[in-house]
Amino acid sequence: MQRIINNPDYIVDEMLDGFVRAHADIVERTSNPRVIRSTFHKNGKVGIVTGGGSGHKPAFVGYVGKNMCDAVAVGEIFSSPTAVAFLDAFRTADSKNGVACLYGNYSGDNMNVKMAVKMAAKEGITVKTVVANDDVASAPSDQSKKRRGVAGEILMWKIAGAASEKGYDLDAVISVAQKAIDNTKSVGIGIAPCTLPAVGHPNFEIKPGTMEVGIGHHGEPGIEVVPLESASDMAKRMVSIIMNDTVYQEDDEVVILVSGLGATPVMELYVLFSEVSKLLDEKKIRIHEALVGNYFTSLEMQGASLSVMKLDDELKELFDMPCYSVGLKKKEAKNELI
Amino acid sequence: MQRIINNPDYIVDEMLDGFVRAHADIVERTSNPRVIRSTFHKNGKVGIVTGGGSGHKPAFVGYVGKNMCDAVAVGEIFSSPTAVAFLDAFRTADSKNGVACLYGNYSGDNMNVKMAVKMAAKEGITVKTVVANDDVASAPSDQSKKRRGVAGEILMWKIAGAASEKGYDLDAVISVAQKAIDNTKSVGIGIAPCTLPAVGHPNFEIKPGTMEVGIGHHGEPGIEVVPLESASDMAKRMVSIIMNDTVYQEDDEVVILVSGLGATPVMELYVLFSEVSKLLDEKKIRIHEALVGNYFTSLEMQGASLSVMKLDDELKELFDMPCYSVGLKKKEAKNELI
Repeated sequence: MQRIINNPDYIVDEMLDGFVRAHADIVERTSNPRVIRSTFHKNGKVGIVTGGGSGHKPAFVGYVGKNMCDAVAVGEIFSSPTAVAFLDAFRTADSKNGVACLYGNYSGDNMNVKMAVKMAAKEGITVKTVVANDDVASAPSDQSKKRRGVAGEILMWKIAGAASEKGYDLDAVISVAQKAIDNTKSVGIGIAPCTLPAVGHPNFEIKPGTMEVGIGHHGEPGIEVVPLESASDMAKRMVSIIMNDTVYQEDDEVVILVSGLGATPVMELYVLFSEVSKLLDEKKIRIHEALVGNYFTSLEMQGASLSVMKLDDELKELFDMPCYSVGLKKKEAKNELI
Repeated sequence: MQRIINNPDYIVDEMLDGFVRAHADIVERTSNPRVIRSTFHKNGKVGIVTGGGSGHKPAFVGYVGKNMCDAVAVGEIFSSPTAVAFLDAFRTADSKNGVACLYGNYSGDNMNVKMAVKMAAKEGITVKTVVANDDVASAPSDQSKKRRGVAGEILMWKIAGAASEKGYDLDAVISVAQKAIDNTKSVGIGIAPCTLPAVGHPNFEIKPGTMEVGIGHHGEPGIEVVPLESASDMAKRMVSIIMNDTVYQEDDEVVILVSGLGATPVMELYVLFSEVSKLLDEKKIRIHEALVGNYFTSLEMQGASLSVMKLDDELKELFDMPCYSVGLKKKEAKNELI
């Protein structure tokens, strides 16, 4: 196993040490070593919290920052943070205006968030949740509550962070975060697996010459395994899966997120985005903004995910607000100063 | 070969199509399809130009933007842009204040830049150059002119872009860019090779269980091949190679850049940075700022590079200026607005 690690058992703590040392202008530690908070956090607003397993860099900790998440609970590689970590994240993010916990639909996260919300309630901290389920390949549309949360979560955090900064109250933040994720559909294609450092070999297989359509962020099985396709055909497949799940009309505006899964060269992501973009042009769907890069990864898995968020006026205004986190930095629109 | 591509022969054009579609707020096309310029470019300042082969995303085109490079010449994968591409980049970046061409020390780039500078002179465009040679492993210190340019180039572009914006004239931009790269030392360690899409198999080998110390950005041989080490030992080795090449004193301030080579999970880069940071703490060298991520890659090579730029007051002031490019975004220091 060719890795840059010390003891695999301590990789998360060592990664966090490096992360906090590197980004002291954006993040800081709390009394819980698995809870990181934003240096920009201020009182008088709804706290935005997320959390999840490690190995998805820059998710989750990279989306803590100005107008993004206020605190994050950090789990082991590909496994949920503890309930106590979520609770401590709620504590640090709360300033008596309540906390929006916006996370992905995985059984471990659901269990631990639920426990943490109960514990927080006993302390007088109101926490409401939105469970991201943007991965359209993970369950049919009539069972959308079963779907996993994947890279579309980033768009939910962006919207909610902006809403909180604008002074939305807790119910309003929850409502717009729910709308953001309801309007966001994602699908992934895996072309080579990843290896957990503590295991030393891949725990799932993608045979050379094939690709797994609809693969999850931890290698969860997708819809089907097919022969490896050209970027053009992959784009057609991904766009079609998403368009079949949501009604789009001419002149709809969308935000596109093409994320690498970790080890795919970024130039390939731009080739894929070029194809996606041409397909949307044909359908007269307008790309308001595109994010292309390694935004939500799965260690060194190869492949990419496509997320599409349909905008309305409110989502567009919130998306356009500036933000400053390790994973996403956005300046004021049409403002030459940064 | 598990890739997201169409025809490997068109990958650069298709990548650029995606790049320009995705980042129309930052970059735009010119009449030469292999020259991309900044939407922020304005008259009345020295033009900053770079260029190089493709496959190093976000380098080179990702460092075009506000207070960064004004135009870039784009080559095929791992090969120099043409002289005409460099010339057209000079033409678009020039506003009668001259052009600083800041590129890496490779024979193809040297040849094409030299030709382009001569052609530009005939048109009345003054171009001066700085040739980056920050890779300390590529030649001994008494032959430093032979050294290759690697990830440290990003720091040179950052400094020169800021200097140009501040109104430095051409000679002053060249002088500070030269100082930036003279003060920057880099070393890479490769742990798995990469594959050129048009070739289909790696054109160099790194055996599992080994690592290549001092590897170049195209797989050029390094100093030695040794058994794969822990992140801690890799950090010691990298810091020692750099510290043996430059005199550092207590309280020196540095910018650190830890870049992945493409396919190494970003969490491992933070583990490596944590170790580097502890070593510099011991030496009482102060990290003014750290960049950790995939800043200068080699397709899906695995491994990392470490670059260290020693700061003086001028470099620090220029480094701290905000910038906005795809690969590097920096807000005004201590300013909560972005």
